[in-house]
Amino acid sequence: MKTVYLTRKAEFSASHFYHNPKFTPEENRRIFGKCNNPHGHGHNYTLEVTVRGPVNEQSGFVMDLKQLKDIMNREVIDVLDHRHLNYEIPEFKEQIPTTENLAIAIWRRLQGKLDGGARLYRVRVYENDDLFAEVYGEE
Amino acid sequence: MKTVYLTRKAEFSASHFYHNPKFTPEENRRIFGKCNNPHGHGHNYTLEVTVRGPVNEQSGFVMDLKQLKDIMNREVIDVLDHRHLNYEIPEFKEQIPTTENLAIAIWRRLQGKLDGGARLYRVRVYENDDLFAEVYGEE
Amino acid sequence: MKTVYLTRKAEFSASHFYHNPKFTPEENRRIFGKCNNPHGHGHNYTLEVTVRGPVNEQSGFVMDLKQLKDIMNREVIDVLDHRHLNYEIPEFKEQIPTTENLAIAIWRRLQGKLDGGARLYRVRVYENDDLFAEVYGEE
Amino acid sequence: MKTVYLTRKAEFSASHFYHNPKFTPEENRRIFGKCNNPHGHGHNYTLEVTVRGPVNEQSGFVMDLKQLKDIMNREVIDVLDHRHLNYEIPEFKEQIPTTENLAIAIWRRLQGKLDGGARLYRVRVYENDDLFAEVYGEE
Amino acid sequence: MKTVYLTRKAEFSASHFYHNPKFTPEENRRIFGKCNNPHGHGHNYTLEVTVRGPVNEQSGFVMDLKQLKDIMNREVIDVLDHRHLNYEIPEFKEQIPTTENLAIAIWRRLQGKLDGGARLYRVRVYENDDLFAEVYGEE
Amino acid sequence: MKTVYLTRKAEFSASHFYHNPKFTPEENRRIFGKCNNPHGHGHNYTLEVTVRGPVNEQSGFVMDLKQLKDIMNREVIDVLDHRHLNYEIPEFKEQIPTTENLAIAIWRRLQGKLDGGARLYRVRVYENDDLFAEVYGEE
Repeated sequence: MKTVYLTRKAEFSASHFYHNPKFTPEENRRIFGKCNNPHGHGHNYTLEVTVRGPVNEQSGFVMDLKQLKDIMNREVIDVLDHRHLNYEIPEFKEQIPTTENLAIAIWRRLQGKLDGGARLYRVRVYENDDLFAEVYGEE
Repeated sequence: MKTVYLTRKAEFSASHFYHNPKFTPEENRRIFGKCNNPHGHGHNYTLEVTVRGPVNEQSGFVMDLKQLKDIMNREVIDVLDHRHLNYEIPEFKEQIPTTENLAIAIWRRLQGKLDGGARLYRVRVYENDDLFAEVYGEE
Repeated sequence: MKTVYLTRKAEFSASHFYHNPKFTPEENRRIFGKCNNPHGHGHNYTLEVTVRGPVNEQSGFVMDLKQLKDIMNREVIDVLDHRHLNYEIPEFKEQIPTTENLAIAIWRRLQGKLDGGARLYRVRVYENDDLFAEVYGEE
Repeated sequence: MKTVYLTRKAEFSASHFYHNPKFTPEENRRIFGKCNNPHGHGHNYTLEVTVRGPVNEQSGFVMDLKQLKDIMNREVIDVLDHRHLNYEIPEFKEQIPTTENLAIAIWRRLQGKLDGGARLYRVRVYENDDLFAEVYGEE
Repeated sequence: MKTVYLTRKAEFSASHFYHNPKFTPEENRRIFGKCNNPHGHGHNYTLEVTVRGPVNEQSGFVMDLKQLKDIMNREVIDVLDHRHLNYEIPEFKEQIPTTENLAIAIWRRLQGKLDGGARLYRVRVYENDDLFAEVYGEE
Repeated sequence: MKTVYLTRKAEFSASHFYHNPKFTPEENRRIFGKCNNPHGHGHNYTLEVTVRGPVNEQSGFVMDLKQLKDIMNREVIDVLDHRHLNYEIPEFKEQIPTTENLAIAIWRRLQGKLDGGARLYRVRVYENDDLFAEVYGEE
């Protein structure tokens, strides 16, 4: 029986800025450039979550799409959408909210939340059309 | 010599609905929601077929693109385009035409049809911009 | 004070086929080609609704976007999504559900439903990326 | 001689939130919903600027594209990109930075800045793929 | 009866470069920059042709789409696709093949070729995602 | 610590044609079709470069994006953009500039140019929306 990889996309809008308190102001400006502006700037992020597994013979589903959507909304979209990542999301009190760290944070929020036969395979986060970060792994 | 993965995209429009005769009407409605409407609804599907292999030194091709296009048209697009998947496509007499099962059906239709050095690597089917299924495998 | 044109996009999936009972079977096949298949085929339609008006000084809105979304959902998306246009939508009992007629039908469903200062300016319907129909007019 | 309309696209990322100090907190929440979060959220905005005019016979240009790009960068992109619209852009000290008001502000920043035969015809601002505002007018 | 605007998209690939023999080499380099390279460079052009008219009651069409596609292919795509605009297309023996002049040339190739009730309304040519030219007019 | 895959996109425009001097004129026409036109034709190519590695705790980066952009510009975009691949790029004096060979050429130009912890993982080249080639791994 073939394994199928199923990917669902969702979007959220958020603000962020890049600043490391251990860096001097000059280092912050040099390393983070325009992204160091403490007022923050924002993006329309696109999230793609991929699960994989066998296809259920009764439903034809690797995973119920409504359930996947509900998990993505509850664990990620409702938490991050229309938020300022630095000020309102616990992961980014200590970490820089780069696309890389955002992909890891979303992976961890989703990990272990899927029921049934499907497993989390990949989290891909687009900051914009020209930049995306991906995390893979086994639950 | 490097292996190259070559992907070609094609589109088709089709109708489908989700219904399992072993389920009660209530189960069908609960599990399949709006997709259970027996009149069917439809999608502009996007198919991406990836082949891989070494590059032919004379032509610069992993595979002749015209040949790949002809195979995709003959085995998949001409069969599925402007069709009702449930009523007109043999695979879906018995199976629910979910994106997952559609990806498997297309894989099987293409498998073994490539000539020469290239091998079928991946079939990806988008039901819409927000949902896609992928099947990988060895011929 | 400048007039602003505000456009909101939404998507729906539907089935249709083209058949005119006044045509002979040969005429139907010749004129409508693959679209004449009575099982129907389907599309992911994209709807763009444009309203225009002055900007409200208190809200900065031409029209409340949530209200526009609710009207679009209630009058169009909830009616057409996951439906077979020929069998389930009254406008298409008598008319061929071409992209042209679909744009007119959506215009008529939205016309007169907007409150306040904004007026319906344009309805644009994409059947797919390569084809769209537009209707303009005054309420 | 035919008039040609020439459109150039550019992108910028910015933060904003919606708040009217004349409204009560309850009104602000009701009218602006999630957009009222004072930390702000953000978007990848897409700007399309359309100029129109006759085609210069020597150059084949309605307007030198490098000059148009320079004007768009100097007057708009360099000003708005990686900024918080409410806190850093003068127009939005008093006005709500809705897509509508942003389109008007960009129109005013560009108006009168074009040299030669081309005239500013339209400013279109996408907040995301599903929403855009347009302003037209004569300089 | 409402007028409907119907738009069909098509694509072609072509090479071009910008050079005016009346300019000095320095002028050509200054005015045309990288586009002055006489070897040429190329683009995937996207063409959108819009026709308008009343909807035929029997067919539901403003214009038969197959006929529109055939005209676009015969008059434009078959002529320009996989060609070097400067060397192989008569209009550009004397004119610079800018996006502006290309839109005018395509307009003139299509003008008067439509049969029946539909009229040519707009030709839009994208050189890439960030740049397009439009020509409007009455036949 | 999780490995993150970071992808950055860039675009360039170039001309090319397909011709193998070892083939007869008939073979060249049969094998390469329209692509055999010696004047060349062109494309807007899209390049996606993926690097992978651990996330630097201080910066939150797998790799400094400005550095990645600079390397992509210096090694690839500045070399290929607005060029005729056959006549101006050394790799294609001897090789057919197919999408496959272009992906390999770009891989080789980027290989070994990244500093620090990130490694080159994948080069993906789109000739247009419907066709792309990918190269992975360490040679």
